[in-house]
Formats: sequence, structure tokens, C-alpha cells
Amino acid sequence: MSQEQDTRTAFMEATYRALCTHGYADLTMQDIADETDKSKAALHYHFDGKDDLFREFLAYLHEGFAEKIADHPEGTPVEQLVALVRRVLDPVDEGSEHHFNTAFMEIKAQAPYRDGYREILRRFDSDLRTEIADLVREAIEDGQYDEGTEPEAVAEHVLTYIHGTWTRAAAIGADVVTMREHLVEDLLDLLVDDATVPIGVEATGEQATATADGDAITGNGSDDVVGSG
Amino acid sequence: MSQEQDTRTAFMEATYRALCTHGYADLTMQDIADETDKSKAALHYHFDGKDDLFREFLAYLHEGFAEKIADHPEGTPVEQLVALVRRVLDPVDEGSEHHFNTAFMEIKAQAPYRDGYREILRRFDSDLRTEIADLVREAIEDGQYDEGTEPEAVAEHVLTYIHGTWTRAAAIGADVVTMREHLVEDLLDLLVDDATVPIGVEATGEQATATADGDAITGNGSDDVVGSG
Repeated sequence: MSQEQDTRTAFMEATYRALCTHGYADLTMQDIADETDKSKAALHYHFDGKDDLFREFLAYLHEGFAEKIADHPEGTPVEQLVALVRRVLDPVDEGSEHHFNTAFMEIKAQAPYRDGYREILRRFDSDLRTEIADLVREAIEDGQYDEGTEPEAVAEHVLTYIHGTWTRAAAIGADVVTMREHLVEDLLDLLVDDATVPIGVEATGEQATATADGDAITGNGSDDVVGSG
Repeated sequence: MSQEQDTRTAFMEATYRALCTHGYADLTMQDIADETDKSKAALHYHFDGKDDLFREFLAYLHEGFAEKIADHPEGTPVEQLVALVRRVLDPVDEGSEHHFNTAFMEIKAQAPYRDGYREILRRFDSDLRTEIADLVREAIEDGQYDEGTEPEAVAEHVLTYIHGTWTRAAAIGADVVTMREHLVEDLLDLLVDDATVPIGVEATGEQATATADGDAITGNGSDDVVGSG
């Protein structure tokens, strides 16, 4: 890695730490410089202000996100799908990660006002949607999901629900695991009648116990919007 | 209405207009005063800074929201439920309303950092959840929804999805109507097999045509996470 790359990576890591401490709205270039052994002038040498720095920071985050969602564990497509949802909605109740998620919500809220932010945020959505749709497609090919299941529609729904989970967690402190496991149940409800219960995807909610019963594996009856049928 | 009340209402209306113009992050007390015939000093006389003003503003918004979601049209419970979802997720593509939704997203993102914001935002969620759960309960009593349907679980799911719709619309400019109509289809999929097609709740998506077929009324087959069965 060149020294220039080293420096930029150090600034990205410093931005992450500074965000966790200060949030996005009140964050200054000085706060970020303070997280490095460089001066604010050095930061300004590399970036043309906060917006410019954050466009690179979002691209840097996206790179990590893309790697994270493409890294599937061994298992059936539905097991991988459930694992993906749980990885993306991994609750972080303490320390810096929690504050980072709050700060990332601020960045999303600022996106309409800042040049270039939305374009990068769309890549997060687009990659996640593709990943989900691909797994649903594989689940259909493997006979876990019915042929009538529509990969793109499922992916869109899951994506919107995931955004809602992040938002409710940040805005009002709603519990991520509860919301996430409802989504997992919906994904398990899509299994065909004679599908094997996926290994390792038992519901983890307090009241939930994974059972193979009818066409749905739900915690307590029809505990999701999919409900009856 | 007393003169004091008149003044406070005028400040709330001014805050709404100022938010639409400036967004939340950059909004100053002066910006708000500029939307009235009062001085910034008068504003400071009534409110102890921006956070204090915004706590009252959120309560003012909540009052309007509570009235909006409780105002049901004539119809069956499911018709009312669909109408509620469409009312809450009414797309606003132009002018001030659009900017207001963007600004409201900023306020949600700031909630973790500001005293008292979360408490008021929770009331929005709690009222909407209650309203949805009550309608689902009525739908079960009326025989539109199966007895196994769980009102609270459906309400939670719808609430999270609605937040996701708002977030994706603000953050990346995703289409509200497309996301909303997927949710409507999910709610119609919950109808029991012999339920009458609700009047006035035909899908409005481009490719969607309302049909009474089996237990689901969907646009194009299983175009939602509910999918097959």
C-alpha cells in the first residue's frame, strides 16, 4: 500500500471513530484530524471539505458492506438468507458500534441535501437487493421455496423492512432482534410444505421455538404479517 | 383561543415552513422568526432554544398525526386498514410537503442526541400501532381475517415497513407508491379464502389489477414476501 493510500485509510478509520464520538451533525474536520496524528491542514489537503470527505467515507463503508453481505456461511439457500438478514441486522447495544449506527442514520437523513451521497447509498441497497434476490432464486431452484415466489419482490420487501428496523432502532430505540426475528419468520413461512427445517435458523426470539408445522415455521402460530392462509 | 395560544400556533406553523425551506440541521431560531411577524427575541421569550421549540413542535405534529390516523372512511375493517396505510404513506412529490418529509427524517436521526425527542416520536409509533392492531382485530371479528391472525404482530410488521418506506424515500429517493402497494398486497393476502373483495382497495400499481382469486388479491401472482403457500 502506498503512503498516500495509508494516509487515506487512516483518515477513513479516524472518521469512523470521530462519528461514533460526535455524531454526524456536529462533526468537524478538526474532530477527525484529532483522531489521527495528522493536522487539520493535512486533512484539508486530501479532502475538499466535509462533504467531499464523506463521499469517500461512504464509498469506503460500502466496500466493507459489500464484502460482509457476500460472505455466506455453508448451508442451504434459505439458511444463507436468514444468516444474511441476521448479519445485516446485528444488534449493537453498546460502545462505538451503537453510536455508529445512529450516526449512519444521520448521514442517510442528510443525503437529500448533499451532492453524491444518494448515489453511494443506492449502491448499498442495490447490492443487498441483488444478494437477497439471488438467494431466493437459489432457494426456488433447490425446491425450498415455491416456484411462484418472486425473488425481486421478496428482496424489495426485505430491503424496506431492514431500513425500517434501522430507523426504528435509531429514532426510538426499538429492539432490533425482535424486529429482525419477525422478518426471519416471514422468510421461513415461504418454505414449501415439505421443506426440511433449515439447520441453524431456529427462531431466537424469547417466545419462539422452531417447529416444522404445515407450511410455516413460526414462533407462535402466525406471528407475522404473513399470518394465516 | 388566547393570544398566547395564537402566538404559539403561529410559531409552530412558522417552524413547519422554515423546516421545508432550510431542513433541520441548518435551521436557526432566526429562520423561524423570519417566517413570522415576530422577532427572534420574541421566539426566545417563548422557547428556551431550538431543542425546546422542537419538543413542542413534535407534540404539535403528533396531534395532527393522531387525528389523521383516527379518521377512518366508511367501509370494512380491511378497507379502512388499506386506506390508513395509503393515508400515512401518501407520496408528496413536490413542493413543501416533500421537503418536510426529508426534514422529519433528520429529526428522527437527531432524536438519540436530543432530550425528549424520542419520547414524543414513540407516541407516533404507539398510536399508529394501536390503530392498525384495532383494525386487524375488527377484521378478525368480521371474518375478513382468519382467527389465527395476530393483530399486534401484524401491526408491528406494518409499522416497521412504513418506517422503511419513509427512510428509503428520503435517503435514496425510492418510490413511495411502489413500496406502499407491496404492503397493501400483503394486507390483502391475509384475507380469508371466501372474503369479499374490498371495495375501493384495488391495487394501484402500474402492473397491478385487482382480482379475487384464491385467498389472495395480488397484483401479479405472489408479488410480495407472502409469496406462495
